[in-house]
Amino acid sequence: MEKLTIVKVGGKIVEDPAGLRQLLADFSKIQGYKVLVHGGGRSATALAAKLGIESEMVNGRRVTDAEMLKVVIMVYGGLVNKQIVAGLQAIGVNALGLTGADLNYMRSEKRPVIDVDYGFVGDVKEVNAGILADLIRKGVVPVLAPLTHDKKGNLLNTNADTIAGEAAKALAKHFEVTLMFCFEKKGVLLNEEDDESVIPILTPSLFKQQVAEGIIQGGMIPKLENSFEALHAGVKQVVITRADNIHTDSGTKILL
Amino acid sequence: MEKLTIVKVGGKIVEDPAGLRQLLADFSKIQGYKVLVHGGGRSATALAAKLGIESEMVNGRRVTDAEMLKVVIMVYGGLVNKQIVAGLQAIGVNALGLTGADLNYMRSEKRPVIDVDYGFVGDVKEVNAGILADLIRKGVVPVLAPLTHDKKGNLLNTNADTIAGEAAKALAKHFEVTLMFCFEKKGVLLNEEDDESVIPILTPSLFKQQVAEGIIQGGMIPKLENSFEALHAGVKQVVITRADNIHTDSGTKILL
Repeated sequence: MEKLTIVKVGGKIVEDPAGLRQLLADFSKIQGYKVLVHGGGRSATALAAKLGIESEMVNGRRVTDAEMLKVVIMVYGGLVNKQIVAGLQAIGVNALGLTGADLNYMRSEKRPVIDVDYGFVGDVKEVNAGILADLIRKGVVPVLAPLTHDKKGNLLNTNADTIAGEAAKALAKHFEVTLMFCFEKKGVLLNEEDDESVIPILTPSLFKQQVAEGIIQGGMIPKLENSFEALHAGVKQVVITRADNIHTDSGTKILL
Repeated sequence: MEKLTIVKVGGKIVEDPAGLRQLLADFSKIQGYKVLVHGGGRSATALAAKLGIESEMVNGRRVTDAEMLKVVIMVYGGLVNKQIVAGLQAIGVNALGLTGADLNYMRSEKRPVIDVDYGFVGDVKEVNAGILADLIRKGVVPVLAPLTHDKKGNLLNTNADTIAGEAAKALAKHFEVTLMFCFEKKGVLLNEEDDESVIPILTPSLFKQQVAEGIIQGGMIPKLENSFEALHAGVKQVVITRADNIHTDSGTKILL
């Protein structure tokens, strides 16, 4: 199968013009087929604040009421997505910005209220990878915003890590997929205080051990659980690294 | 050649939820290939006002400074475009929202400053109709936001009538194109005070005569000039009508 690299970048890097330019330059140099998935939470929070809308977070996830939904549609689907697309086109990458509603490529359902009402947040139910795969084979580079839709007319806020993981799993039927999660650190750290203490390889047994020992904690746990799930679903390789290191071998490789 | 209908709708209709639902239902019933082009100026003005950004209009066109550019990217490329796409997907239309940057389908250059500095406004220079035509033939319905890009990394604000006209001219090489401009009136009126005084057919000579007599004036003049230009470039038919009349024969037909 042909190779496809899916790079997920967080909000911080895409919201700083110089950082974004560097990221897009690095991303454009990835050989073969590629997909970019982006966040944008900081910009959403900033716009919401300017509009007098309070950002409520529960368990690290944004609570999305009707007003906040409009904000994230504007910021994720508009400002961040289109600036990335225009930036990639400027360096010869034939980018196409997509939400899950576009081409109906990712359908979700509003998360049921159990303990917490997250509001207009979508849990992914269906990925139409075929239409993405066709575009990718034609040289199109999808740029995926963290928004899905319920096919009943509603857009829903969906975590960018989830979008990347779900897209990777579905596209694994068409390509040999490497999924790269980029964040501020050089990888998963043995010691949060020491930026150089990158764990080079994580397997399920090592992961369990390090969670038990409290070495791996917080938001990294769902990220790694998603990674193992992606590998079980046929993704070839998952890498957690810093955005400026995507062309080096310095991050954490997640393996089964 | 196969038929393609391009419908341009103004801001007012797409910004009222009930009006939008009706419009999308009517649009979905158009036989054959179709494209939707939308505005969104009222929402942009409203968001700008909430953010304390003043909307300056010169000759009926928005002056787009750096802050206003962000607003229109959010509103046109995000909020309005994605809500239309999600609304169409809900009724079985395989919509794909696009700015000119997406797939590099429409490239522009920042308008040179002669008498007025319109700011980040793009004059269309190149339309890559082939990539649109391929998608359309696969059953995809492009939803075009009034934004272009300069292929140097900048998005630019571009009038929705212009987007519709330029897309129509370029797609006329691939399809037999009908271009429909929808606005609040039932067509071009003989008497602005009488909503029923629709001029059924306008030709270049009738147009010149009615402009000379002051019957046709204001924003209708560039709209009609664009229409004649589109016809000269191979568009089969231009119709000016009210959005809820797109399935009737009641508007103004523009003919050479």
